[in-house]
Order: sequence, then structure tokens, then C-alpha cells
Amino acid sequence: MKKLLIALSACLALVSLSNRQKKQRIVFFGDSITEAGVKPTGFITRIGDMLKQKGVDNNYELIGAGIGGNKVYDLYLRMDDDVLAKSPDIVVIWVGVNDVWHKRTYGTGTDADKFEKFYNAIIKKLHAKNIKVFICTPAAIGEKTDFSNELDGDLNKYAAIIRNIASNNNCPLIDLRKMTLDYNLKNNTANKDRGILTTDGVHLNDAGNNAVADIMYSTIFK
Amino acid sequence: MKKLLIALSACLALVSLSNRQKKQRIVFFGDSITEAGVKPTGFITRIGDMLKQKGVDNNYELIGAGIGGNKVYDLYLRMDDDVLAKSPDIVVIWVGVNDVWHKRTYGTGTDADKFEKFYNAIIKKLHAKNIKVFICTPAAIGEKTDFSNELDGDLNKYAAIIRNIASNNNCPLIDLRKMTLDYNLKNNTANKDRGILTTDGVHLNDAGNNAVADIMYSTIFK
Amino acid sequence: MKKLLIALSACLALVSLSNRQKKQRIVFFGDSITEAGVKPTGFITRIGDMLKQKGVDNNYELIGAGIGGNKVYDLYLRMDDDVLAKSPDIVVIWVGVNDVWHKRTYGTGTDADKFEKFYNAIIKKLHAKNIKVFICTPAAIGEKTDFSNELDGDLNKYAAIIRNIASNNNCPLIDLRKMTLDYNLKNNTANKDRGILTTDGVHLNDAGNNAVADIMYSTIFK
Amino acid sequence: MKKLLIALSACLALVSLSNRQKKQRIVFFGDSITEAGVKPTGFITRIGDMLKQKGVDNNYELIGAGIGGNKVYDLYLRMDDDVLAKSPDIVVIWVGVNDVWHKRTYGTGTDADKFEKFYNAIIKKLHAKNIKVFICTPAAIGEKTDFSNELDGDLNKYAAIIRNIASNNNCPLIDLRKMTLDYNLKNNTANKDRGILTTDGVHLNDAGNNAVADIMYSTIFK
Repeated sequence: MKKLLIALSACLALVSLSNRQKKQRIVFFGDSITEAGVKPTGFITRIGDMLKQKGVDNNYELIGAGIGGNKVYDLYLRMDDDVLAKSPDIVVIWVGVNDVWHKRTYGTGTDADKFEKFYNAIIKKLHAKNIKVFICTPAAIGEKTDFSNELDGDLNKYAAIIRNIASNNNCPLIDLRKMTLDYNLKNNTANKDRGILTTDGVHLNDAGNNAVADIMYSTIFK
Repeated sequence: MKKLLIALSACLALVSLSNRQKKQRIVFFGDSITEAGVKPTGFITRIGDMLKQKGVDNNYELIGAGIGGNKVYDLYLRMDDDVLAKSPDIVVIWVGVNDVWHKRTYGTGTDADKFEKFYNAIIKKLHAKNIKVFICTPAAIGEKTDFSNELDGDLNKYAAIIRNIASNNNCPLIDLRKMTLDYNLKNNTANKDRGILTTDGVHLNDAGNNAVADIMYSTIFK
Repeated sequence: MKKLLIALSACLALVSLSNRQKKQRIVFFGDSITEAGVKPTGFITRIGDMLKQKGVDNNYELIGAGIGGNKVYDLYLRMDDDVLAKSPDIVVIWVGVNDVWHKRTYGTGTDADKFEKFYNAIIKKLHAKNIKVFICTPAAIGEKTDFSNELDGDLNKYAAIIRNIASNNNCPLIDLRKMTLDYNLKNNTANKDRGILTTDGVHLNDAGNNAVADIMYSTIFK
Repeated sequence: MKKLLIALSACLALVSLSNRQKKQRIVFFGDSITEAGVKPTGFITRIGDMLKQKGVDNNYELIGAGIGGNKVYDLYLRMDDDVLAKSPDIVVIWVGVNDVWHKRTYGTGTDADKFEKFYNAIIKKLHAKNIKVFICTPAAIGEKTDFSNELDGDLNKYAAIIRNIASNNNCPLIDLRKMTLDYNLKNNTANKDRGILTTDGVHLNDAGNNAVADIMYSTIFK
């Protein structure tokens, strides 16, 4: 009997170990929007809640790796320490707002061709480690629906670049730009520049965190 | 008999003088696009041709007053010399491209609130002289139809400001921005950034000069 | 006796009238730095105090006409209302910081050639009314003495333009740029970017208001 | 006799091999200025000539690794392929002009803190391979000597950052900024913005290539 118990306990331990080994590690890699995603009401926290509701939260570990002000080359610089060192199974990249925005505010945005070059270099390094990579278009710099937000043109240009990158690298695309525009066309009939999915035109409010969590969840776990 | 001839000749001279006095003077006031409008295939020349075809060209004098690189405050600075000194009956103002464009290229665009202030000041001075003022929205900086021309957002913003200025000052509006977008949606299915109505995304090609002449003619002479 | 009193009173009235007529009106025309000049410790207030100490304050009326964010073309736009309407004898123009600074912060600075054109137009209008015009170079955007303030190069360029304008128009120059650099070379051995003559690199602190009042007083009232 | 010849030939081969092994490989890593350094009259070619004159050219291999438009993060991105893959003994880094210049021209310069971060990352990777690293301050964007070149302030700021980086990392400094200013103070009494050491204010003319070759030679081979 004692032997049986020992055997059983060893068996359970193995199952548990095997479960632990199967736990998928997902790193969310981005700027201040992602940085805020791990807050109690942030989109990463919400995705965790959704996994819990499905009873599969033990299968996944969600890690936030967002830093305010980051542009694509900042991600490249810190990817060894902040992403690869964590041996993730999945990486969700969400970057681009600052690459466009900082052109206007600091004169330090990112050239379109270099944006693409660094983005491809990041994906290449991740794919080399057999990491599954999801990439996102930037959601918004201003929520007006009539394309009169000052940086709409350039943001659309970089969103188009990202769609191409996704296609060229066989990365599933999470088209937050399209989602945001569609959502605003329905819910922002007053053509306001903030307050629908964002607090300030860029950073997510509650509705924004919900909407982003929804589209990410349905894309990543489908 | 001699007396009769003299009387008749005096009478004809008076009629002629009165005709000359009734000739309406139209000044086209703007930037490089307007500057090119007086070339043989330019839109001002074309409007002149259209007046000729109707046989009313003797009733109008068309004057080009465009200077390359001009922004709204440049128009204000030179309006005494280049517009008021010519005692026009009608002024057609077309400005705004450089106010947006030069933000990116030279760091010397025009703030939105000051754009409006100078525009209103120009109109006020013209209206004070009982001059009829037509105002135009800027047509394009890039002809892509998916709102991914880099400066689309800001250009749309300034176009919206101009529509408000027109409404506030009871100035007939010539909405070249809307005309250009509509035309491109029909004729630019390849989403090219130039070559539809412009040579370079900004300056008019033949089709552009025709299109602008058409909408101006039908608005001014309706 | 009654006649004598009447004569005396008439005489006093004449003297008073003549005094009033002789009171020189000085308008300080500029941006936020000038706007703050009329505060209790501002440089315009201090110049007033210096005139009082000399017992000649009744001979002068000092008027502040500074508005925050103004560039040279903003001065041109409002000079009829804010300067000419006040029939000044003397105008002190101090502008240029925003023409340089806003290139970086908003993309809406002023091109060097247009800066000169508007400046000359302002002076021409003032001289046409026989108003004496003093012009100032911009003091500083950052107080470091080793020419490593980000905008030093462009600010020096615009200061050089203003020195030429002064020379071309026979306007006495108040070289605040030179004064500020000289003062800092003596008093800012730590190469700090603010806190010597300014609170923030641009706007005057107490020492700055004193230094500006001194150089203006000695130039205007010499 | 045959054995002797074989032994001799083996011996010579060994000497040759050992010579080859001792040949020091120097990579010049930078932007368009370095890219042009390998032209017949470029500074890298001249350094090669100087080594030849000293009869030590067989001891060194000089490799140009400059690409036009490069900023510090572009160097970081391509350093594996273009520098480390060549197993250099010495790397001479010359970068910074575009990090400052592109703020004005494209809105895509480099933030000062990120400039430093990427620069340190490059040096760290090179030092980890026991590569000796020389670093250079950017020479000029405009050659005027009165600090009125538009970008002088920012360029001086980045030169100061580089001097700190050199000191912090024990990298010998080649102070091209100081050399250029000193040279111009002597030879550019007319305060011209180009034509002394550069063709256009940035890229080296003959005198510039000579001056840069001289200071690099004397620093690297002292």
C-alpha cells in the first residue's frame, strides 16, 4: 500500500511537471500602451481573466514587456534581455505610435524604411527561436473618424507597412487600427478626438482595454 | 449732320467707357499652384478660354497673384500691393498647402489657430472694400485615396477650418479638397500618390487644371 | 483781480496741456517675455521705477504690448490695434524666440527670409508715423555658455539677422543676446541651462529683469 | 638539397602565415562620410598611403564600413554582419551627424538618451570581443565659426555626449568636432558655411580628408 502511494504520488508529480512544462509563455512586447496593459484593468490582465473564465489560465503565463516611449528600434535593442531571456512561446508585438508621433513632437520618429527593417529583424530573431509572433497595427493618435486627426495619414502609412510585414513573414495580424476605426465609426458619431477607446487619443480607457483584449484573445487562442 | 455724328460718337464713347467700367476684375490669390495657373494650360487661362467661348470674356479681367511657397500670412503681408492696389471686384483665395507641408519639410508651417486668424483678417479687409471673396480648400498633398498620404490628417484639419471660415464669413466655398478626393476615388483605383490630378501630389497636371477650372467657373459664374 | 486769476488759470492750463503733450509714450512690443515685463518685478515696471528715481517718470508713459507665443508675423497682424492705435513716440520690439523655438516644438517657426521681411514691414510702418524704433536680439533658449543649447545655432542666426535689420533701418539695437552671453560667461561657470538670468532658459528671473531693464534704460534714455 | 628546400619553403610559409596572422584589421564604421573615405582621395585611402610611406602597410588591413544616412541605431542593427563578421582588431566609430540633422530634415533624428544607449551597446559588444574601439565626435553641419550654423547647438550637445561615452568606456577619443572648429577659426576668417574642410558643410573635401586622416593616424598609430 505504501508503495502504491509512493508510485501514485510520483505519477502525479510527473503529470504536474509535464503540465508545468506545457504552460505557454506569452510576452506582450511594446510601448507605454502595453506597459499599462498589466494594470488591474489593463488588456493583458483582462486576457488573463478571460483565460481563467475558460478554466485554462494554468496553461498560460502572460508577461508584460512594454516600456513608455519605445519605438521599433528600442524593441530591437532590448529584445535579448526582455523577451528572449524569458524563452517565450508566443510574442505579441505592438509598436508604431511613437515612431510616427515623435516626428512631430521631438523630431525623432522613425523613417518608414528603417521601421520596416528593424521590424523584420525582430521577427527574424524570434522566428529563429521557433517563437510564434503576432503583430499589431497601431490603434490611434486621435479618434476622429473623418481622417482629420493630425497624424492620421502617416499612421495609416505605417499600419499599411505592418500589414505587409505580417503577410511577408506569415505572422498573424491583429489589426488594431482597423478595429479602432470601425469601433469609432459606430460609437463616435460626434467625431470626438478622444474618450471613445482612449483617454487621450492614444492610451486605452476601459472600453479600449476591453476591445483590445477581445480581439487579441480571439486571434491568439482561436 | 456733322453735329449728329459728333453727338453719336460721343454717345458711343460713353457706352464704351461704361462697358470698360463694368468689366469685372478677378484676382486669383495664392501660392505656387495659383502662380502656375496663368501658364498657357493653367486653370486661370482655361477659365479665360471658357469665358471666351461664352462670348463674355470682355466682361472680365482675370489676374493671377500667386507666389510659390506662400502661406496664409504671406498673403496677408502682400495683399495691399498685390490685391487691393488692383481694385478687384472678386478675389479667389487658394492657400493652405504650404501651411501644412512646411511643418514637415522646414519646421515652418502655420499653427491652426493663427491660420484661421490671418485668413479672417484677409477676408475682413477685402469685405471692407466690398470685394466678393471666394475661398478654396487645399486640394492635396499626395493623391492616395486610402488616407495614407503622410499629411492627409493635417490637411483635412485645415480644410475643415477653411469650410468653417467660409461659413462664418458668408464666402462661397470652392471645395477643391472634396473635389480631388471624389475624383480620385473614381479615377485612382490603383491608389497612386500622384499623376491623377497632379504631377507631384501637389501641383496640377492637365487633368487637374481642367478640373479646377471647371469647379471654379461653375461656382464663380453661376 | 478776477482778470488776473483767469489769466493765471489759463496759463496753468496751458503749461499742463503742454506737459501732457510732451509725455512720451513708449510701447514694448513682443511675446510672453514682454507680456511678463509689466508684472510688479518685470523689466518694464523696473524701467518705470528707474524713471521715478530720476524724477522724470511724469515725462513718460510705458505700455506693455506683449502676447505669449507671438512670432514676428503675429506682431505685424496686431500692430494697428496694439501699437499704432496708441500713437506711441517710441516702440521697443523684442521678438524672435518663438520664431526659432516653434520649429522644434510645433513645426511652426518662421523661415529666416520671411522673418526679415515681416520685421522690415513692421519697422517701415512705424517709421512712416515718425515713431522711433528700438529693436532687440532674442536673449536665450537655454543659458549654457558652451554653445550646446539645442537651438543656439539657429538663435544666433536670427540674432545676426536682427543686427542687420537694425543697421539697415537705422534702428538703435539692444543686443540682449550678446548681453546674456556675456553675463553668463561671467556668472554661469557651471554651464547650467537655466537659473542665471532666466527661470526656464527663456523667461526672465529677477536678475534677468534687472539686466534687461538696465540695458534698455541706458539705450533708450541716453 | 631537396629536403633543405622543402624545409626552407615550409619555414617561409610559416613566416608568411604568422605575418598574415599579425596583420591588424581596422574597420571604419559610420555614415556617408565614412562611406566616401575609401574613395581614391578619401581619408581611409590616405591613412593607407601614410602606412605605406612608413613601410608598415603590410601590417594593417583597412576596411570601410560606412553607409549613407546611417544613425547610431543603424550601426547597431548591422554591426554583426558588417563589423563582427570581419573579426577586426580595431573599430573606429564615426557617427552622429544624421542623428542631429534628420531631426530638422525628416523628423527622424535620434533622442539624446537613446543615442547614448545605442552607442554604449555597440561599444559593449565590441569590447566583449576584445576589439579596441576609437570613437569620433561629429565634425560639422556647416562650417561657420560664430556658432550660427543652424544645428550647432544640438551638434555640440551630441559631441559632448560622445566625449562622455569615450571617457566612461575608456575609448580613445578622436575629437573631429574640436579639430574642425580649431581649423576653421584659423582658416575660415570669412565665416563661410562650407568650402574649408567640407564641400557642403558636412562631407569632406580634399583638405578635410587630409585633416581627418592626420588626426586619425596620429591617434590610432601613436
